[in-house]
Amino acid sequence: MASINCDMGEAYGLYRMGDDEGLMPLISIANVACGFHASDFNHMRETVRLAKRLGVGAGAHPSLPDLQGFGRREMAISREELTNCIIYQVGALKGFLEAEGMRLNHIKPHGSLYAMAARQAEIAHAICDAADVFKVPLLGMIGTLHERIYPERGHEFVSEFYADLDYSDDGTLIVTRKHDERDPSEAAARCLRAIREGKVRSVGGKEIAVRADSICVHSDTPNAVAIATAVREALGDHLRN
Amino acid sequence: MASINCDMGEAYGLYRMGDDEGLMPLISIANVACGFHASDFNHMRETVRLAKRLGVGAGAHPSLPDLQGFGRREMAISREELTNCIIYQVGALKGFLEAEGMRLNHIKPHGSLYAMAARQAEIAHAICDAADVFKVPLLGMIGTLHERIYPERGHEFVSEFYADLDYSDDGTLIVTRKHDERDPSEAAARCLRAIREGKVRSVGGKEIAVRADSICVHSDTPNAVAIATAVREALGDHLRN
Amino acid sequence: MASINCDMGEAYGLYRMGDDEGLMPLISIANVACGFHASDFNHMRETVRLAKRLGVGAGAHPSLPDLQGFGRREMAISREELTNCIIYQVGALKGFLEAEGMRLNHIKPHGSLYAMAARQAEIAHAICDAADVFKVPLLGMIGTLHERIYPERGHEFVSEFYADLDYSDDGTLIVTRKHDERDPSEAAARCLRAIREGKVRSVGGKEIAVRADSICVHSDTPNAVAIATAVREALGDHLRN
Amino acid sequence: MASINCDMGEAYGLYRMGDDEGLMPLISIANVACGFHASDFNHMRETVRLAKRLGVGAGAHPSLPDLQGFGRREMAISREELTNCIIYQVGALKGFLEAEGMRLNHIKPHGSLYAMAARQAEIAHAICDAADVFKVPLLGMIGTLHERIYPERGHEFVSEFYADLDYSDDGTLIVTRKHDERDPSEAAARCLRAIREGKVRSVGGKEIAVRADSICVHSDTPNAVAIATAVREALGDHLRN
Repeated sequence: MASINCDMGEAYGLYRMGDDEGLMPLISIANVACGFHASDFNHMRETVRLAKRLGVGAGAHPSLPDLQGFGRREMAISREELTNCIIYQVGALKGFLEAEGMRLNHIKPHGSLYAMAARQAEIAHAICDAADVFKVPLLGMIGTLHERIYPERGHEFVSEFYADLDYSDDGTLIVTRKHDERDPSEAAARCLRAIREGKVRSVGGKEIAVRADSICVHSDTPNAVAIATAVREALGDHLRN
Repeated sequence: MASINCDMGEAYGLYRMGDDEGLMPLISIANVACGFHASDFNHMRETVRLAKRLGVGAGAHPSLPDLQGFGRREMAISREELTNCIIYQVGALKGFLEAEGMRLNHIKPHGSLYAMAARQAEIAHAICDAADVFKVPLLGMIGTLHERIYPERGHEFVSEFYADLDYSDDGTLIVTRKHDERDPSEAAARCLRAIREGKVRSVGGKEIAVRADSICVHSDTPNAVAIATAVREALGDHLRN
Repeated sequence: MASINCDMGEAYGLYRMGDDEGLMPLISIANVACGFHASDFNHMRETVRLAKRLGVGAGAHPSLPDLQGFGRREMAISREELTNCIIYQVGALKGFLEAEGMRLNHIKPHGSLYAMAARQAEIAHAICDAADVFKVPLLGMIGTLHERIYPERGHEFVSEFYADLDYSDDGTLIVTRKHDERDPSEAAARCLRAIREGKVRSVGGKEIAVRADSICVHSDTPNAVAIATAVREALGDHLRN
Repeated sequence: MASINCDMGEAYGLYRMGDDEGLMPLISIANVACGFHASDFNHMRETVRLAKRLGVGAGAHPSLPDLQGFGRREMAISREELTNCIIYQVGALKGFLEAEGMRLNHIKPHGSLYAMAARQAEIAHAICDAADVFKVPLLGMIGTLHERIYPERGHEFVSEFYADLDYSDDGTLIVTRKHDERDPSEAAARCLRAIREGKVRSVGGKEIAVRADSICVHSDTPNAVAIATAVREALGDHLRN
């Protein structure tokens, strides 16, 4: 059983990013941008309303403070500062959830914050410090500090498998600044295998252990709707809404 | 009976503003800046903690999006956008309150937002739209749309009297960009008269009707601590903590 | 004789806006966003380089400080503050022009700043105060304070005609938040008539006096490339590069 | 012979930082904040005017994009992005210098940018790439990549000695988030020795080689005016204005 999660609400002002209208009907849970790497108060409201209308669980997608770099710029930040930075963003999202009578579903750190938490204990702990306040599951990856620290700190850990990214031979995800188009049926097959067998083939042809509690599709992958459609269909009974 | 309210937590990054440590012990309720005219995630956390330690009620002090202008720049904004803008800020503050086990006490719009709501119905309604979500009292002034619209919309209206600002002959507050030093005992006497008699003498010598459910002292008035001390002492049994 | 001008470089971070690559070969002069309503240091560099490569004159397109509102939010700002705000932006652009061995071609205020200067003398004067420093032509519209104040202050005034916007019966431009698709040949014919006869038909069917020293095509009009292509072709010998 | 340099114009909006009025008469060259770690268009104008009035050379003090962290947060940034980031800021400052009929005197990177350039070649080269455009001296420290790369790239390198910071045993500067009060006469004596002998005693008692082409006094050191006064007096004939 796996949910499908997707980064949603990454527009900003007049700028658009991703086909939220097309993707929201296909996913189980939405990672809602909170204004620090993308989105603003208007897009957050709209995204929460769209999630509500389609019965999609809304989680927070907090970022380092880096709108211009879309949260993909690593930076030095203390554990305490980062905790505060995350509480601010999750709190802001909860304001909109409260306005729409919804509950916070989960927290998934965005971009460089996600990547830093995978290898820096202080960053992973800061995320837990913030999650201590909100008491919702944390999305992350096995084989990283996410898997070790989140549960250690008493938080539910939801392991993601990425439908539209490649894995390197050492099991790490290959994150690119821009995401490329993928063959939908191939992506779907990879996801199904990840769920059933807990394995994915790396770019170098190795078998990598993965755990797919949730399948992530990126909204800024060019053919994201086609991929999500294929994945959703392929999952069948494995899909947890 | 009147509370004493004060704008708190208006520092930003390394920048300081106001003597929060000196003032917090003297006030009943704190209007906590939410990052749009002043403050950031670190100062919000610190301000909420300080309020908690001293048993001071913490309310939100949302602003138009205008850090560089300290929220004192009037701007065109639609009712819906403004509602979202306020929900974002109040939600963010509630994140910190949740972290410290506190409740949101009230909402007091900041600067130009406060002034615009006094005379533009759409702005006052946007504030109510946001307050519909959080269901806490709204601070404002009699003789303005605050007094008419907030209660009409079902919100508790707390009328403020300003200890450190002058009133013009038509009853409006004279808001200056920088606040000047005031004689503390004179300020205290004015507050006491406002509570007891519901009157203040304007700059032109007229008697103006006021209502002092809460006394406002500005933290950026140079001798704010002295004024707050004098007001607190003068209020005696009239002080509501 | 008329030039074709177009707002260019309105991307921000990962966000895209307008088909700069498609439009730049079709225009005479580019209004380059300076980071206050759109763009950032990377897109400014790129836009200046693209203009250079295609021999297009690069002017500054300064805005009120309003990235989230794309500079379309009117706000209160003093003449002195606004002058400084514009100098900052034009100076920043000149940094990139200096880097590429180019000269500043003109200044065209963006969005609400343009609209406010049309009717508020203090705003038009602030633009002139900034233009006093840089000594380049100012783009604007006849029938507004642009036409009166810019030349009064000794600045060359370049009157624009809008290829993709309608004019109301009183001669004012109908500015919409989003620009709609236009019939390219119709737009081109309107431009040619504006140049030859100095006239345009308003939405109510009136003949409005216009002056077309430069034709403006908006890069965010959906079929901007088709419009610019048709206009460029129609202009023929009237085109000033 | 040594100049005295000082970071100036680090206010932001209503926030104040440092006693610019008190320090400007005492220094030779001002490092003017450009809006990315501190300052805004108004304070830049004011700072440039103050420098002009007192005959002080005005240089740019560009930063990483980090207003909330005062430019003291290290971050990942590519050489090309950083070059653009610096050109933007220096260009903006040049706008104000042009407005006041002044010339750009030098560039001194701020905070973490300065520190990163000391040890990361790509960062030092990005600074040089920007300096290639503006062709002014670069301030930095001996014993770092500043000393090696700036001259290699053909830029005049001005070596600083810090009047109000300590040196560790390995010759590196001990940079603190907040600067502490210093004994003015002791600081002045250290500066004089640095100029005459090229030496300073480290916190561990070692003799460290320094080169004092310019003495830096921080405007946010609590008794900065007293230190600058003492240094200026002590320098006597060694002072280059």
